[in-house]
Amino acid sequence: MTDAETTLAQLRQLVDEFVAERDWRQFHSPKNVSMALAIEAAELMEHFQWLTPLESREVAAQPEKLAAVAEELADVLCYALALANELGLDVATAVRQKMVKNALKYPADEFRGRYGPEDTGPKDLGPKDSGAEGKRRA
Amino acid sequence: MTDAETTLAQLRQLVDEFVAERDWRQFHSPKNVSMALAIEAAELMEHFQWLTPLESREVAAQPEKLAAVAEELADVLCYALALANELGLDVATAVRQKMVKNALKYPADEFRGRYGPEDTGPKDLGPKDSGAEGKRRA
Amino acid sequence: MTDAETTLAQLRQLVDEFVAERDWRQFHSPKNVSMALAIEAAELMEHFQWLTPLESREVAAQPEKLAAVAEELADVLCYALALANELGLDVATAVRQKMVKNALKYPADEFRGRYGPEDTGPKDLGPKDSGAEGKRRA
Amino acid sequence: MTDAETTLAQLRQLVDEFVAERDWRQFHSPKNVSMALAIEAAELMEHFQWLTPLESREVAAQPEKLAAVAEELADVLCYALALANELGLDVATAVRQKMVKNALKYPADEFRGRYGPEDTGPKDLGPKDSGAEGKRRA
Repeated sequence: MTDAETTLAQLRQLVDEFVAERDWRQFHSPKNVSMALAIEAAELMEHFQWLTPLESREVAAQPEKLAAVAEELADVLCYALALANELGLDVATAVRQKMVKNALKYPADEFRGRYGPEDTGPKDLGPKDSGAEGKRRA
Repeated sequence: MTDAETTLAQLRQLVDEFVAERDWRQFHSPKNVSMALAIEAAELMEHFQWLTPLESREVAAQPEKLAAVAEELADVLCYALALANELGLDVATAVRQKMVKNALKYPADEFRGRYGPEDTGPKDLGPKDSGAEGKRRA
Repeated sequence: MTDAETTLAQLRQLVDEFVAERDWRQFHSPKNVSMALAIEAAELMEHFQWLTPLESREVAAQPEKLAAVAEELADVLCYALALANELGLDVATAVRQKMVKNALKYPADEFRGRYGPEDTGPKDLGPKDSGAEGKRRA
Repeated sequence: MTDAETTLAQLRQLVDEFVAERDWRQFHSPKNVSMALAIEAAELMEHFQWLTPLESREVAAQPEKLAAVAEELADVLCYALALANELGLDVATAVRQKMVKNALKYPADEFRGRYGPEDTGPKDLGPKDSGAEGKRRA
């Protein structure tokens, strides 16, 4: 079943049953789960550590590497859902609320093509920039 | 709409539209998105940094603190979904596959009450342990 | 040679020679080095992931585990020094300046036994707290 | 006093006195200190989050940004030294031992210009690569 057919609740339950079946709730203090999540996030980063931004995009076309990345991303998701379970947080609600906040903080008109207030616009587009047309980034 | 009614695809689309609307795909190389995710995971950890494991569980009953944690968790989720979007990964599939792998690595019979191979069992349960009955952890 | 006999400059040179000898400066953009440092910091955290605070202190008396922790700590230090090398930063100066700032932010009189403004004092010291005498933490 | 004149022991003592003066040892379980270190490592990364590798090198010539980076690097160092203090680890010894291990794992002849076994050599050097002469990276 894919993302179009799977609810957040279904994935949360999958994680919850796994933890309960192993009597692991005792280890899943929010402190520990947040540490575990951060550790997995670092393992995910490790796949892109020495790659250029452009090379990191090419991973999408490298099945072996992509599968490894998918596995780390799954680990991150599992701990995120485990934390939601431990604290009784509704993930969909939290994400929607944060996206509303983000839209207010980064109005599209003002931040189109700018990643933040400190981003003052395109640098001189010489050969040393990654060559994506009309864009400044790889 | 809550976790029971929201699919992964719906949340992915929310994130995708936000990014597209601001022409931010140029900044969303998987390298950058993995960095952003790790940064948010650390901000989430920060809420539990100096708390005991037991105190971290008590956050569930502290509305102000819980809301702050929910916001950081949402940030982590947003970047996880953004990465799935950039690499064309189906999150539900990845999570299910990883849970199957986890079940093989940690059979319930063998790991009930043990967090890993290095966990050789309960220590001497003296007053200095966190006092959850029958469990070794807070 | 131990910490009493080794200067920051000596360790920085050790790292610098290693990087130069392998023509690795090309990979050591500050962006990459900061990622590498964060990845090693997570690997260091992993050693304490499922331990109670008290158990994490006991690692000091477990030679095998302590050696593994020392290795990860060394990795963190190496990348920190590599970043100092790439950006031309004097580490001793930076640390001293930050410690001055910290002392102003956390006057000893005000923060003795309190980790921050949000720390309002000892909770009820019942058996469920870690049992360090007169202290609230393990 | 600069890196050439400052020993690791001197910086460790600075951190140790600060912690002792505030009676903060109780919060400095290795578990907590490793979390704190990872959090600071993420704050350091944040300065390079949306920059290209080349732009991250340019920070060395931007005094305001460089000072902010120096402060985060100092935070990372402080917690690394705090952990060494808590666990009684000699940092210089650990770093030297790890560098010996690294030299065996990455012999200079074999890894000159290669970041690891998976690095099979220069890609096609077209305009889309960052333009550093003779190198593949920015």
